[in-house]
Amino acid sequence: MAFTRERAVDGVVERLFELTVDGERVPAVIWAPEGAAGPRPLVLMGHGGSQHKKIGGLASRAKTYARRFGYATLAIDAPGHGDRIRREEALANMREVGARVTGQTSSAWTPERLQLMAERTRRAVPEWKAALDAVQTLDFVGPDGPVGYWGVSMGTAIGVPFVADEPRITCALFGLAGLRPNAPAFEAAARAITIPVEFVFQWEDAVASREHGLALFNAFGSAEKTMHINPGGHLDMPAFESASWERFFVRHLGVAAGAQALAAE
Amino acid sequence: MAFTRERAVDGVVERLFELTVDGERVPAVIWAPEGAAGPRPLVLMGHGGSQHKKIGGLASRAKTYARRFGYATLAIDAPGHGDRIRREEALANMREVGARVTGQTSSAWTPERLQLMAERTRRAVPEWKAALDAVQTLDFVGPDGPVGYWGVSMGTAIGVPFVADEPRITCALFGLAGLRPNAPAFEAAARAITIPVEFVFQWEDAVASREHGLALFNAFGSAEKTMHINPGGHLDMPAFESASWERFFVRHLGVAAGAQALAAE
Repeated sequence: MAFTRERAVDGVVERLFELTVDGERVPAVIWAPEGAAGPRPLVLMGHGGSQHKKIGGLASRAKTYARRFGYATLAIDAPGHGDRIRREEALANMREVGARVTGQTSSAWTPERLQLMAERTRRAVPEWKAALDAVQTLDFVGPDGPVGYWGVSMGTAIGVPFVADEPRITCALFGLAGLRPNAPAFEAAARAITIPVEFVFQWEDAVASREHGLALFNAFGSAEKTMHINPGGHLDMPAFESASWERFFVRHLGVAAGAQALAAE
Repeated sequence: MAFTRERAVDGVVERLFELTVDGERVPAVIWAPEGAAGPRPLVLMGHGGSQHKKIGGLASRAKTYARRFGYATLAIDAPGHGDRIRREEALANMREVGARVTGQTSSAWTPERLQLMAERTRRAVPEWKAALDAVQTLDFVGPDGPVGYWGVSMGTAIGVPFVADEPRITCALFGLAGLRPNAPAFEAAARAITIPVEFVFQWEDAVASREHGLALFNAFGSAEKTMHINPGGHLDMPAFESASWERFFVRHLGVAAGAQALAAE
């Protein structure tokens, strides 16, 4: 496994690499503390629609997790996203998704959108598995450490089928998505998930109705599952939820050796 | 204001006192760090049905808050509870409420229970105000510090009308309760509350249906309100919610002078 770029900033190293899965190039990134050696908890972060593997909030969380908990964080560009498309396409997608999540255009699941999403998920699941395989060969990750998943919106649309199919993942943060009627594959995946789940939901989300959000929460097969509902739209999630995610991951993944002082908080 | 008993254990002083409100004796307790001097955040904790002001979980939280955040915590026996009734009555009430919250007996709001609860709330609101007046004269609380409220189940049934009517309270933790149809006074009180609210709810609670729980969350007038839903019954709330309450209060009340190191966590 060769890194195409390594860069250390403020005690965290960002390493870029690429995989080839089913003939497709999959750009990936892993963050870890500078000087990291030996196994540590790993978080996989799935970005949202029209975003990419190094989008601001995701990268910022990955760096915070590295500094505070000693975690490694892996992200990949989803099919049709990031470095897998041209810059003009990415910008057009950003405008289209932006208009949809803010309710300016319809979020109805047209047959075309459903087919696009199904195709993305079909590709993304083996890509995530290949990326996880690859980083577990790294000395500073290791094959046996606990693995968490984080992904909201499209990160949940892809994440639910992926997590349902990936026994290495031991806890998952989902959100900003719902379970529509007549989505039997997605529903079956949600029911097959039995690891601890935290599910964050916006009460006035143009993308997912209250009813569909509650239906997805109800479908998760986990004995430990918790749903956090906040007012506002798709982009209005309050900042205090990210503090809750930190506690969720520390509770279930622990912290890396050497970061124990922070775990006691 | 005379304390009837003071006792220091593990760095926290527990002081008992009594008020007389509308001719009724109201037993009260306040916890604060040993050696506390000067103003500090205050949390009012309303106990649940059949419980009392020093019930285990409440007292344990009060002591933790004193040690970690330097808080003072005030609790009073609700009407018909604790030291306001005989021991045999308290035990009978505990059995009756225990059977109800675990679904062994009906939790239907009979006219008798509704009248009893309305009468308790009518008495409890001025009692809470008098207790707050009293402790704000104490040097180690002060008249101007931030005040939070915590109360689930009956602590919400009484707490919603109290908080709606008490401008000194700046944030409130409610839970394990719902808004029934045809409860216009309770609904109006919930709508009048505009401070930050965290609302914790059990998804299979014999005492409050999902529909009524969501209705109460919807009714709160607050721009910042968050609902945490967990599986299980009235007594099954997961332990991690109490960690969320700590962060909620620290976010909104800050911490006492001298406890800043802990606030940064």
